[in-house]
Amino acid sequence: MANARESCVYEVNYATPRSFATTLKSDLKETLFPDDPFHEFRNEPPSKRAKKAIQYFVPIFQWLPKYSLSLFKYDLLAGITIASLAIPQGISYAKLANLPPLIGLYSSFVPPLVYAVFGSSKHVAVGTVAACSLLIGSIIGEKVSAVDDPELYLHLVFTATFFTGILQAAMGFLRLGILVDFLSHSTITGFMGGTATIICLQQLKGVFGLKHFTTKTDVVSVLRSIIAHRHEKKKKPKLFWVSAIAPMLVVITGCLFAYFAHAEKHGIQIVGDLKKGINPLSIRHLNFDAKYISAPIKAGIITAMVALAEGIAIGRSFAILKNEQVDGNKEMIAFGFMNIVGSCTSCYLTTGPFSKTAVNFNAGCKTAMANVVMAGCMLLTLLFLAPLFSYTPLVALSAIIMSAMLGLIEYEKAFRLFKTDKYDFLICMAAFLGVAFVSMDVGLILSVGLAILRALLYVARPATCKLGSIPNSSLYRDIEQYPEVTGIPGILVLQLGSPIYFPNCGYIRERILRWVRDEQASRDADQGSHIEHIFLELGGVTCIDITGVEILIEILKVLEVKGIKVALVNPRLEVMEKLIVTKFIDTIGKQNVFLSIDDAIEASRFNLERSKQLQDAQGHNYADGASLSKVWNCNL
Amino acid sequence: MANARESCVYEVNYATPRSFATTLKSDLKETLFPDDPFHEFRNEPPSKRAKKAIQYFVPIFQWLPKYSLSLFKYDLLAGITIASLAIPQGISYAKLANLPPLIGLYSSFVPPLVYAVFGSSKHVAVGTVAACSLLIGSIIGEKVSAVDDPELYLHLVFTATFFTGILQAAMGFLRLGILVDFLSHSTITGFMGGTATIICLQQLKGVFGLKHFTTKTDVVSVLRSIIAHRHEKKKKPKLFWVSAIAPMLVVITGCLFAYFAHAEKHGIQIVGDLKKGINPLSIRHLNFDAKYISAPIKAGIITAMVALAEGIAIGRSFAILKNEQVDGNKEMIAFGFMNIVGSCTSCYLTTGPFSKTAVNFNAGCKTAMANVVMAGCMLLTLLFLAPLFSYTPLVALSAIIMSAMLGLIEYEKAFRLFKTDKYDFLICMAAFLGVAFVSMDVGLILSVGLAILRALLYVARPATCKLGSIPNSSLYRDIEQYPEVTGIPGILVLQLGSPIYFPNCGYIRERILRWVRDEQASRDADQGSHIEHIFLELGGVTCIDITGVEILIEILKVLEVKGIKVALVNPRLEVMEKLIVTKFIDTIGKQNVFLSIDDAIEASRFNLERSKQLQDAQGHNYADGASLSKVWNCNL
Repeated sequence: MANARESCVYEVNYATPRSFATTLKSDLKETLFPDDPFHEFRNEPPSKRAKKAIQYFVPIFQWLPKYSLSLFKYDLLAGITIASLAIPQGISYAKLANLPPLIGLYSSFVPPLVYAVFGSSKHVAVGTVAACSLLIGSIIGEKVSAVDDPELYLHLVFTATFFTGILQAAMGFLRLGILVDFLSHSTITGFMGGTATIICLQQLKGVFGLKHFTTKTDVVSVLRSIIAHRHEKKKKPKLFWVSAIAPMLVVITGCLFAYFAHAEKHGIQIVGDLKKGINPLSIRHLNFDAKYISAPIKAGIITAMVALAEGIAIGRSFAILKNEQVDGNKEMIAFGFMNIVGSCTSCYLTTGPFSKTAVNFNAGCKTAMANVVMAGCMLLTLLFLAPLFSYTPLVALSAIIMSAMLGLIEYEKAFRLFKTDKYDFLICMAAFLGVAFVSMDVGLILSVGLAILRALLYVARPATCKLGSIPNSSLYRDIEQYPEVTGIPGILVLQLGSPIYFPNCGYIRERILRWVRDEQASRDADQGSHIEHIFLELGGVTCIDITGVEILIEILKVLEVKGIKVALVNPRLEVMEKLIVTKFIDTIGKQNVFLSIDDAIEASRFNLERSKQLQDAQGHNYADGASLSKVWNCNL
Repeated sequence: MANARESCVYEVNYATPRSFATTLKSDLKETLFPDDPFHEFRNEPPSKRAKKAIQYFVPIFQWLPKYSLSLFKYDLLAGITIASLAIPQGISYAKLANLPPLIGLYSSFVPPLVYAVFGSSKHVAVGTVAACSLLIGSIIGEKVSAVDDPELYLHLVFTATFFTGILQAAMGFLRLGILVDFLSHSTITGFMGGTATIICLQQLKGVFGLKHFTTKTDVVSVLRSIIAHRHEKKKKPKLFWVSAIAPMLVVITGCLFAYFAHAEKHGIQIVGDLKKGINPLSIRHLNFDAKYISAPIKAGIITAMVALAEGIAIGRSFAILKNEQVDGNKEMIAFGFMNIVGSCTSCYLTTGPFSKTAVNFNAGCKTAMANVVMAGCMLLTLLFLAPLFSYTPLVALSAIIMSAMLGLIEYEKAFRLFKTDKYDFLICMAAFLGVAFVSMDVGLILSVGLAILRALLYVARPATCKLGSIPNSSLYRDIEQYPEVTGIPGILVLQLGSPIYFPNCGYIRERILRWVRDEQASRDADQGSHIEHIFLELGGVTCIDITGVEILIEILKVLEVKGIKVALVNPRLEVMEKLIVTKFIDTIGKQNVFLSIDDAIEASRFNLERSKQLQDAQGHNYADGASLSKVWNCNL
């Protein structure tokens, strides 16, 4: 019968565990460099490698040498289009953050240039975003009033932007893109929806407040914008120009109206005084006074995460459409540099906003040159046209903001979450309701907390299932999923979930013992055979820690007393290493570890037969006694 | 060739997903009732069921009716033994918490009686513990000085004990034993070691401080205790009596010495005034003043967790030795009641301490009656003997504490952690160093934080591996673990780790694309075949969320453009349900989901042949075009 084991050519691999240094290196690589970013220049000579490295870290060296006039035609068109969006959005979002409108225009000049040098996405259009503007405004506003001390407020906003940049760049260098992963789509959907809702309500107040003084212009603007927005939603490529240019049209119409009707005399508020000239330096305005520092740090951390989540997600989505790759960590470094430089040149937080990037993509941009073109347009605007926009009625800005915001309330997506995953829906609604009814940071933290709780709960309760045999095959499948599979007399096969870790060890023990109890009860009811063997299928278990090994030993002991033998099937590399190091393999015995369930069944049948023969021959159950004493002598 | 698919009798199960209510019920059961506590009285008539329910919730009704004199003999001996330990430990640990020594004696009278009624462990001996005493003292001491305002301090300690009890009972009723699971063995080892170290250092100070005044008695005591302790460590059953009685002997010797030598006149501090009489009520002393409430709440929460971790772990360890079960949630309720009643009767925090329970077990206790006997001994002590102990020299108490503490520094265990799992060692050392050099709560939180971080990192980086075929079998195994396995021409088989969740979706995409890139590069180098199919083996994946499904679609698209077809193999129940609900199965097509890798390979060979035939016949690759358009039309 020894033939049965020998006929199986491949035995379980008991190779010496890899050294700590090897596993640490491999773990660090998986954690920090999952995309293996340096694979491109691994086999190059040193001179070429240096060049490739520079091209890798500063992507402009990669695309600029190959740049041609034919590409520039596309980028010029796209650049002008996004510039026409950048001007009204810049002014509007600056207002959301309680900043002077000029800061919004400044923020569309310097950061796009920095991004063009370091950014790896071809489609991202840099600019300010509504959610972060509101977030930064509300956090800094708690500390310093934008009305009472606008100068200090402005300086703290620059400081927050500086921290955002430092944090983003540091996360990129330390390859901590993993942190952004914890902002799930559900959280972002809820957060954006909640932010859009409060922004809309804020703006509506303004719109209704003005009704007493003026004509229906504002309502018309709103309607026009909403129509433009609806066109955008339908994503008909021909009509996207309407949505791209509509805000600019609203602003120009509003300006002309305000200028010729002397609207400010009729109580319609306008933007007011916009000075000519490019960004003044603001590096000496960065304020690290211990009295205020907590607010910019808090704002910096939260907005850094939200801005990254938005900027990286959008870049990635459009890259997929063109079958290209975006490196999240490189994007973080680019965003980080952009905000550090921005904070020193009178800009506040910028990222790659959804709306602008979509317009850039649809306008046919080919490279980051579109951002340079936009910056050029902003330069001209700042130098020559800025004063013209001082007549923009605030109500036109409200209309622009609201139109952009309505697109962010993705109720269809929320409904889809509700239909497919109730817990994801809960995470989404926590962000939405938290932002809408409490505050932006509370909503965000609540939602992320729930998402982490879910991840922890998953770790705490890995699914275990009972396997049955599919007739005429060597396949074993979950008996709940495939009710037609059949059990094996005298044997219970359990597939354990992954990982086996301290938070779930208690659960795994209870669950296995419950399987045994239930199985024995049902076999007793059917007057079936007694369970003599339990096979733990570990093929799906990728990790086990020392508490997990201890619990396996505990299970071994408890079941041994009940007269049930335990065997392991197909432990994977990391698990096998841990089992060898902890001497668990010595405890259970190599003869009880198998490569497949079939092997284990064959061996158990052989054992049953042999123990019967021995019993007959010697009058006592020798085989059982030997294995029992072995287990009890284990020194763990 | 349709035969190939038909010859496989069992197809993948596409049953309609279970309703939300069904899955929620099943999830809640797994999360909160993994041990299925009511299985015993599921098939009983209602009258019996009520009786069983009462017995379940109040275990004394279970064992008392069957109790006999023969059992009582054992419990009497064990009870007296632990009482002889309870007196010196009670006085000593109360001193650690800066409480009057009498409180320590009170705490060994009422709580054991409560535990005897509600506790489910036969071996746990109730009493105060050093770590929690120090913890409660340090947290309350931050708010109110025990020296300046001892009365208020005492009342806040009662309040903290009350909160501990409420929290423990609530966790038990809500079945939140899962929270205690997050205090891993590594954390507890480090925490206990760190606590023991600072306690020892504190006591050493006392011992050396006294040297100027007195003889070598203290050193002798210490040495004697250490010897006693060493005997305990060796776990020779005959010698355990030495360790069990040694503290009492030290106290009695010390008392006699102090009494006859009038030690207090020579500068040796003694415990001083101990009033006769049992616990006075303290319910009206519970202090919920908003000014102080934060300290007792904080102390209550932290000590509740630590006390539960110690109490439940010890109960479980001894139950295993006797092959019995301890219900963690029931234990929590018992500990909770014990502390609620205790806080109203002048007791402070109690649990099932390691040392006392070990002595109880070794003294041969049979039921919780040993606790009743101990309480009886304490009653006699409080009524008649208390004043005798007022002569106990403080230095004797220091010796007792130190001797107990040295046993808690488990350097062998720490060394074993270092050898087997560096991260567990780090978690352990974080607790140890944090407690020893910063503060107890910081050490604990740091260690738990690291442990949770590890759990999250695990979720964020599930191991993926490439499978190869074992010749002459239908087995596929990790190519890194079994280097002898062979690849399959044109096909790449990847086994995905579990779960596929929002924090790891980005990683899974990068990792799969890297596998494809590396595999193609190595095949190109060998001038092997081009990859045409990728099979994702999902047998180990127990869960997928909506972001996970989105990433699968993304992978599908990216690979489709490279001309690589994706098939899924063996998705499990929960995963299949999610794939059906999100319409992913419609996107990928049922013909691309297989029950086994063999099925998938067979189908892909058939496809290759057919597409070649079609190509030959019609001059273009019809099959590919069809499947491509299908994937691109997906509406997700």
